[in-house]
Amino acid sequence: MCPNDLTGFLAVTVALVVSVASADAAGDSRAVAIAQHGDAHGTPSCASCHGQVGEGNAAGGFPRLAGLPATYLDAQLNALADGARQNPVMGPVARGLSAPERLQLADYYAALHAPTSTPTAAPVQLDDRLALHGRWGEEIPACVQCHGENGSGVGSRFPPLTGQSSLYIANQLHAWKQGTRRGDPLGLMQTVAGKLSDADIRAVSDYFAAQAGGSPSTVSRHEVESRPAPTASGMTQRLTFIPPEGPIPDSDFGKVAELGRRIFEDPAKYAGQYVGNDLTCSNCHLDAGRRVGSAPLWAAYVSYPAYRAKNHHVNTFEERLQGCFRYSMNGRSPPLGDPVLVALESYAYWMAQGAPLTPNIAGRGYPKPAAPALPPDYQRGARVYAKSCALCHGDNGEGQRANNGSAAFPALWGPDSFNWGAGMGSVANAAAFVKANMPLGLGGTLSDQDAWDVALYMDSHERPQDPRYTGSVAETRAKFHDDSDWMYGMTVNGHVLGSDSVPPGPRPRRKTSTSHEAMYP
Amino acid sequence: MCPNDLTGFLAVTVALVVSVASADAAGDSRAVAIAQHGDAHGTPSCASCHGQVGEGNAAGGFPRLAGLPATYLDAQLNALADGARQNPVMGPVARGLSAPERLQLADYYAALHAPTSTPTAAPVQLDDRLALHGRWGEEIPACVQCHGENGSGVGSRFPPLTGQSSLYIANQLHAWKQGTRRGDPLGLMQTVAGKLSDADIRAVSDYFAAQAGGSPSTVSRHEVESRPAPTASGMTQRLTFIPPEGPIPDSDFGKVAELGRRIFEDPAKYAGQYVGNDLTCSNCHLDAGRRVGSAPLWAAYVSYPAYRAKNHHVNTFEERLQGCFRYSMNGRSPPLGDPVLVALESYAYWMAQGAPLTPNIAGRGYPKPAAPALPPDYQRGARVYAKSCALCHGDNGEGQRANNGSAAFPALWGPDSFNWGAGMGSVANAAAFVKANMPLGLGGTLSDQDAWDVALYMDSHERPQDPRYTGSVAETRAKFHDDSDWMYGMTVNGHVLGSDSVPPGPRPRRKTSTSHEAMYP
Repeated sequence: MCPNDLTGFLAVTVALVVSVASADAAGDSRAVAIAQHGDAHGTPSCASCHGQVGEGNAAGGFPRLAGLPATYLDAQLNALADGARQNPVMGPVARGLSAPERLQLADYYAALHAPTSTPTAAPVQLDDRLALHGRWGEEIPACVQCHGENGSGVGSRFPPLTGQSSLYIANQLHAWKQGTRRGDPLGLMQTVAGKLSDADIRAVSDYFAAQAGGSPSTVSRHEVESRPAPTASGMTQRLTFIPPEGPIPDSDFGKVAELGRRIFEDPAKYAGQYVGNDLTCSNCHLDAGRRVGSAPLWAAYVSYPAYRAKNHHVNTFEERLQGCFRYSMNGRSPPLGDPVLVALESYAYWMAQGAPLTPNIAGRGYPKPAAPALPPDYQRGARVYAKSCALCHGDNGEGQRANNGSAAFPALWGPDSFNWGAGMGSVANAAAFVKANMPLGLGGTLSDQDAWDVALYMDSHERPQDPRYTGSVAETRAKFHDDSDWMYGMTVNGHVLGSDSVPPGPRPRRKTSTSHEAMYP
Repeated sequence: MCPNDLTGFLAVTVALVVSVASADAAGDSRAVAIAQHGDAHGTPSCASCHGQVGEGNAAGGFPRLAGLPATYLDAQLNALADGARQNPVMGPVARGLSAPERLQLADYYAALHAPTSTPTAAPVQLDDRLALHGRWGEEIPACVQCHGENGSGVGSRFPPLTGQSSLYIANQLHAWKQGTRRGDPLGLMQTVAGKLSDADIRAVSDYFAAQAGGSPSTVSRHEVESRPAPTASGMTQRLTFIPPEGPIPDSDFGKVAELGRRIFEDPAKYAGQYVGNDLTCSNCHLDAGRRVGSAPLWAAYVSYPAYRAKNHHVNTFEERLQGCFRYSMNGRSPPLGDPVLVALESYAYWMAQGAPLTPNIAGRGYPKPAAPALPPDYQRGARVYAKSCALCHGDNGEGQRANNGSAAFPALWGPDSFNWGAGMGSVANAAAFVKANMPLGLGGTLSDQDAWDVALYMDSHERPQDPRYTGSVAETRAKFHDDSDWMYGMTVNGHVLGSDSVPPGPRPRRKTSTSHEAMYP
């Protein structure tokens, strides 16, 4: 550790101490008293089960409270009090507290910075499939997709899983499944837990219990080694190609395909020099590009070379990939032959193994929803957004980061989103994607009208400029967006979309990505 | 026409006149007398059937003689005399001539420059499939493959077809088929004609009769429009993918794939800036890349991206194509994304429509012959070459041009052949190709030992330097050819192969190719 690092380390430590101290000082002494000693009405001290600093008790299945979002903790106490979350111990405790006391306790524990709990001893072989990849054949997203990288938590609605014991996590999943815990946003956890077997619950709980709190884990090779064939539960899935089972072989070719997979799932990390936002390929191509209904990568691979009206010539698959970087990733196109493109192409080729070579392959692209009964409408879209989308993507489409700082939910508009040249800027495309896949894990539940309305709403906000911008919005629209399907250049709420776009490409304040050269095997 | 061109034109004209005149002057007056008047023993005048200047008589089915190779004409008279070629009129005539008279007549007609005969009136729709593409499912090469572009003839053994009447051509094909004409080199025409139906013979005869003598025809779109599915006559063919039927669609994509097909069949014309010899892609990938047994293009397409030991990294299909230009075509690699590569990739993609995406596809590459009983041997190889290969590829591997100047049979070594970096420089590769495909139309007829011997013989001659040449043959061999399979750097007949190679790439004296820009649609 060099002197500079040491200074930084001391500064951070001091800051934490101050932070806890000031929370104490400013906190309601009533909360401290209850937490440590209970109250005169028979409320036991929180610490008796949850530990002196809210660190939890793994053996008893009592959750860690320290550092959890205050809103989340308060909501839990309220749910325990009103029975939406049923618990024979905590129900009476929560009901014995007044509403202000619950809030004060929530604030108190949220401000605590308990030492990282010792992870549960890891089983010989952790089964990380559900945690990291989900099981999309049954429409189960990966846990980390909502709870953030490493289960570090996202915002106040997706609590951290890391730092909780296996017993506690398992108990909660069973509670969701049995309906003794309810009231989660959009019914997401009830839906997901309802599809989990006991073995699934054990696997997920063991996995997150074994994670070291806070520090992001990288996706290791073995994590996909035992991935099973996707369960072909849906009719669509059964009628279409199923990508190969199992891991990418560790061959000379496989190493490159595996790099492609990593780029696909984390382009900012593995291809940072070419991306200008925190989106990942998997954001639009779910299940690491495997999922039917979200423009699967294998279907795209067998469809190129192809003529594209977008640029009026025959594009190879590699040129098509360049477009993703330039528009959807709001970055710049890797040059043809760049290791990033070769790796992605190799990953796509691997995934398409055995597929028939044809642009007419079933499952290509997004399944188009029926035309809306009413013309898509901004106001109705805003209501759909608030109800079904803002939870993850934020009130202003800004997306959310996980508590450990990693990308979690993508920005849907604004300077950190895809730019005006991206395919998702087409309302029809966006409606198709939303209908089939959103909210995550609840694909197909929105009505066609809702999907069209919210797509129009999303595409009626500013985003980075189209890289093909000619200097005039009207001219750029005429040249590239002259279609009722594109909102670019249209006036919405008195504002001409595209007239106040930030320039395309990475923003200056963006964090430096891991260097290119270092990432290649 | 600029003054310079005019001068050249006049010079050529004068040369021709002089040539005919001197042939007359130096020719035996005996030949002239017989040709024009017959002789006292009852030999009729040649002109009575073959016309005053040997132009032939279409209605009677009497062939044109003027301008045919003297060796060929002499061989025919001898064959007619000895019965190898049976003809009730010409048999007695030929037998009535002495051997010197036959030779004199052959020289006489070879030197004549008869006016181009009027082509037979073209049927509404000429069927050019056999003439231009063959029927490889039955191992029938295109007629033009041996008789040269437009049937203009190649050397003295493959006579011109253009300028002959439909009746004469049809009569000869029937004669080959019935065995009343025999003695052709390697039995090629007997083999081919034996596979033709009456309709086939009519189609071929009509096609060549309709061609204007001399001037090369370009391959027009409609020529492939009615191409049938390859006949799956062989077991190998039946077990493998069969490329799509019919023409390439005239779509935005199809136009590019069609350009790729043209490049494939005539790279010097359509991608001249990137090639350094007169080879075509079809020389090694027969039937325009369709044929199982000669590394079909569709099988290659579904096999990439792939790791290649040749350059120690994963190659995309496009990079693989670059290698063909650099080595086999002894040219330079088109840059990635170049229209030439995109067109070739599109053609390959079109041809592979419906094939399963896998490097294990049946029919890929060349079927390997059994290991030879004896180590491959130069002297034995030389004998095989003289017997089975020199006919087309020339006594010194130099290849042959058609009489109209277009490329016909590729050079197998020497400065106009593929360079030392090409895959065919591997003896095993060459043996595999030869065994499966050579002589053209007689694939599989050489013994395994013969194939290995002649492959070693071919690869034991100088050719253009390996473009990766380090400045030292020993070092270049150690780096790229350190394998008993490569003759580069080995000493043969006291000469170190590679030590006297011309530099790789187009040779300065090469004719200028059609400009790149002008070729693109």
